[in-house]
Parts: sequence; structure tokens; C-alpha cells
Amino acid sequence: MVKTPYLLFLGDAPDHLAAKVAIGIRDWRPENSVGQLRLDGCGADLGLADMSLEQARAAGARTLVVGVANRGGVISDAWKGVLIDALNMGFDLASGLHNLLRDEADLVAAAEANGRVLHDVRVPSVQYPIANGVKRTGKRCLAVGTDCSVGKMYTAMAMDQEMRARGMKSTFRATGQTGILVTGDGVPLDAVIADFMAGSIEYLTPDNDPDHWDHIEGQGSLFHVSYSGVTLALIHGGQPDALILAHEPTREHMRGLPEYQQPSLELLRDTALPLAKVANPACVVAGISVNTQHLDDDASARYLAEVEERMGLPAIDPVRNGAGRLVDALADL
Amino acid sequence: MVKTPYLLFLGDAPDHLAAKVAIGIRDWRPENSVGQLRLDGCGADLGLADMSLEQARAAGARTLVVGVANRGGVISDAWKGVLIDALNMGFDLASGLHNLLRDEADLVAAAEANGRVLHDVRVPSVQYPIANGVKRTGKRCLAVGTDCSVGKMYTAMAMDQEMRARGMKSTFRATGQTGILVTGDGVPLDAVIADFMAGSIEYLTPDNDPDHWDHIEGQGSLFHVSYSGVTLALIHGGQPDALILAHEPTREHMRGLPEYQQPSLELLRDTALPLAKVANPACVVAGISVNTQHLDDDASARYLAEVEERMGLPAIDPVRNGAGRLVDALADL
Repeated sequence: MVKTPYLLFLGDAPDHLAAKVAIGIRDWRPENSVGQLRLDGCGADLGLADMSLEQARAAGARTLVVGVANRGGVISDAWKGVLIDALNMGFDLASGLHNLLRDEADLVAAAEANGRVLHDVRVPSVQYPIANGVKRTGKRCLAVGTDCSVGKMYTAMAMDQEMRARGMKSTFRATGQTGILVTGDGVPLDAVIADFMAGSIEYLTPDNDPDHWDHIEGQGSLFHVSYSGVTLALIHGGQPDALILAHEPTREHMRGLPEYQQPSLELLRDTALPLAKVANPACVVAGISVNTQHLDDDASARYLAEVEERMGLPAIDPVRNGAGRLVDALADL
Repeated sequence: MVKTPYLLFLGDAPDHLAAKVAIGIRDWRPENSVGQLRLDGCGADLGLADMSLEQARAAGARTLVVGVANRGGVISDAWKGVLIDALNMGFDLASGLHNLLRDEADLVAAAEANGRVLHDVRVPSVQYPIANGVKRTGKRCLAVGTDCSVGKMYTAMAMDQEMRARGMKSTFRATGQTGILVTGDGVPLDAVIADFMAGSIEYLTPDNDPDHWDHIEGQGSLFHVSYSGVTLALIHGGQPDALILAHEPTREHMRGLPEYQQPSLELLRDTALPLAKVANPACVVAGISVNTQHLDDDASARYLAEVEERMGLPAIDPVRNGAGRLVDALADL
């Protein structure tokens, strides 16, 4: 568990896009960030207060979160100085970078000297169990995609936010680096050992109140041959009561696989639902979340209306329309 | 790659069953074993020549293979003496034990002093790539099961053996500890990091002659919620041209999951084949392999005839009937 609130370290991010993790934290957990720390030449700006380490500590920040990708996969000297100062000042550090904080001897030494924690959220910190398949109490929702990177995390975040706004019991359950940094906890599923994948999701989504919903962050796609095994482990470990079909309609092929076409929403439904019923015979497909960022307003509305008619399910773009109609569908179950 | 031939270490195995790995090596690669080494009180006997380390070295053995499970998960002092003597005498060591040879300081020291290798085949020794899904040349066959431990490895071994006996080009591709020790090479799939599962199978079954068959060792089951993700990674990484359905008809529930029932062979076919076609649209279900060890001869014959009629596919028990009819089916593709 990463301690909140955070100071978001943007470093020397060349542009806004490089600060994706920090943007996610600001958008989904604004209460978790006291401000941003930018180095000379930083091209990103979250619109948060610029703070020094001292100012952020005084404002209550407990963890400096690396909210930006590093250039060339190296933690530069410019970063190092700030990170070590932060440890000396009592911050923990958290990062989802490929190169780990724990592999940097000077960071390890500074953390030990100050009794601070280095959180490399890309690496599991728990010995997860093998899944036992026992039915758990509480409700679970999982988005499954026609492809990778079609908006599954955003959909789950938006549904969780909407449920909490309505006073419903709801938790977003992170399974990737960004989600873990946003919420401070979760399972870095892509780094879990094969035999423990489904068990890690059982661990992540334990027994809960009968009217509590876990919104489990989806990963990969049953139709993406590089990651489909991860997706099936999520479906079987998660025991979802409801599936949301997630889609991006302008893709020309599966992400990174030019020889592979995206499946139709019908084929996704007919593939994912029977597999989900193995773990939870009561599972249903509750709605459709479409990422229409590459369509204009009219085209988006037309596309969603067509999908809704064709599939007989509520179809929304959570960015344009919010997740209210998906939450309505879950509330009606 | 583990160097052959082997001396098979049976230690103080309480009974025959404890020597499962050694039995697999003897049965499937008799040419790989020069003999067996048993300690006082050993209850297993493979019917191979009993040899001392010295005799086995003189007979050409290059690796001492731990072919037995250890009691209580501890490498005992009695074993240690033999293992260290073996290293001093020029043997490599190979083991599929949960506790690793490399975690034993005295074994590491003896291996280093003698320039020998400790093979812990339960742990990946390769940084596998992420799967790219590119179509590979050559043919691949994969057994998928209604459950775990229904005879998928035995089926693949038997088909490979039959093909080689016929002079066909064929390779067994191990994905588990026993298979790796039997053949000396493979991918310990259950220990691979989630993101690299499918890629490890692409690595294991590279481009080959158009008329060469890889027989990929199956793992888990699409219907076993603990391991289904591993199975789907095998299907998508393996790009099988042919699936064999594997079944054990007397199971009362899924292995280790008392609340879960086995699927029918029809449901297995209708689930696995569409998923396999994502990676290889030409994939077919070629036959059925049934483990009828708990049926008598008459019951086995009746069951297989019934399945064959019902499914319209050759149905055999490879132990009772050999794998000839499955190989016929592949040869006809």
C-alpha cells in the first residue's frame, strides 16, 4: 500500500503524454495529490500547484510518485538528486518504471538510512496463492476488450466513480501500473508468475458485502494472442457477475499484430460470456463501453446508437457520456 | 539443455510413485539413462542397472538427474553427500524439485569448484520474448483437456514416439518439469511471467520444415479456473494446426475444485477450437485421447467406441491402444 497523499514528480517530461501516470492520478484521485514537481525543461503541466519537496512535505505529502516515463530507460542524475533529497526528507518513493528503484544502489542506501520505502509497483510484492475457485460474496464487474488499450481501465474507473457518487459501495481494483499508482494498491498482473495469475485476482477481490461492487481493471484481450492468457486468468480469478464489452471502432488491426483483425462485439460476447460462466454461472454481459475519441460528436452518437440497437445493450463512451447508464445496468441486476 | 545420458537418482523414494520423473525418463527416453542410483531404504526400482557414481561415469553418464520427490521439501544430508560427490566427479545436476539446487550453498560451491552446472528446470533460464503472433512454418499439435492431469503429456509423448517410429519428422516440446527432464529441454511454463507466456511457446516451437510436427505438451484446462490462462497462452503461442481432446471419464469433479464439473467433450471442442482459430484459422480437432486407466478392458473399448461415434473423431487410449490412429489423423491433414 503506497501512502497518500502524493507529490507528483513530472521530471523533465518532454510533453504532456509522457506524464500519463500523473494525469491518471490527477483525474481519478485528485484528493491524493498535493501538487506537482517539475524540473527545468519539463513540457508537462497538470495544472496543480508547483511545489518544492519542502512545500509538499509541509502540505502533508507522504510519497513522491514518479508520474512520468524516463527517457532511454535510465534514471538520470537530474532525477537522482531529487529522489535522494525526497528520501532524506521523509518521503517514500513509488514508481512504475521498467528499471526499478530497488536496483539503484544510491536510492536503496538513502531509503535504508531514512527508514523509507521504495515502491516498484511493476513488481509483485506478495506471494499470491493458487486460485481455489471458491465462490466469493459481493459483486464484481470486469471489462473485456476486442483488443488491448481500448479503454478498459477508464471504464472501470468511471463506473467506480459514478457508483461512489451515488452512494453505492464500490472499489476500483487495479491490475496494472497506472491503476496501482492511482489508487495506491493492486496486483501488477502482467508480472505475476503464470501459476498464480488467477489466484492473484482472487486475492485482489476478496469476500465483500453482498451489495458491494469491485470494478476490476481489465488487461489484454481474449483475441490478442500475446496477452490472452492474462485476460482469461482475470475472467476466471475475478468471477465477474457482469462483463462490460470494451471496443475502439477505428482500429485497423489488433494492437501490435498487423496480421490480426479485431473481433466483432458479437464474437467477443459469445466468447467471453461462456468462459466467464465457468467461474460464475450467473454472469451476464451488462453493457458496452466504446472509445470514440477518433470520431466526432455526430459520428460517435450514431455509432453508439447503432451498437445499442444491434446488441440490445446500453452502449456509451464513458469520456463523452459518463458511465451512468452502465451503472444503471448493474444496479438493475 | 541438460546433457545426456543420465544417471537417475532415486534417493530414498518411499515407493514407486515417488519416482514419477525417473519413470517418465525410463519410459520415453530409455536411451538417455545408463542406470539408477538408490540409497538405503529406497522403495522404487526402475529395473535399470544399479550403479555407483563411478560406474555411471565410466558408462558415460554426464548428468545426475534427481528423479524423485524429496520428503518434506528438504534436501536431506543423505542426498547432499551423493549430490556433492557427483559434482566432484564431473556430473552436472538436474532437478525439478520445488526447493532449488541453486539455493543450497554447498551445492553451489561444489558446482563452481568443479565447473559444473546446476539445472533447476522448474525455473526459466531464458528471457522469453512477448509473443508476436507471426505465422510459423511447420506443423504443431496440442492436446487440450477437459481437466488437468488427464494424460496430455503422455498423449504428446506417444504421438511423437509413433511419428518417429514411422520415420516422420517430429519433436516433443516439453512445457513442464517432467517433460523437460525427460527430453533435456523445454519451457517451465507454469513459472513464466504472465506477459511472456505465449512468447515462451513461440520460442519453444520455432519455424521448422513444412512436414515437421511439434507435439506441444499441454497444461491445465480452459475449464480449470486456477490454470486456464496458462492453457490459453499455450493455444495462442502454439498456433496449433491440430488439437487433440484429452479426457478422463471417471472424474467426479475438476481436479482440486470440488464445486466445478468437467465439461463435455463437445463443450471442450466448441470452446477450444474457435480460440485456436484466432491464432491459426486452419486449426482442426483431429482426435480424442482418453485416459481409461480406471475402466476395465471391456468398459474402455465400449467407452471409446461410444465417444468415437458421438464425436465423429478417432478416440483412443494411448496406453492401451497406442497413438497410431491419432498420427494417422494428423498424416491425413
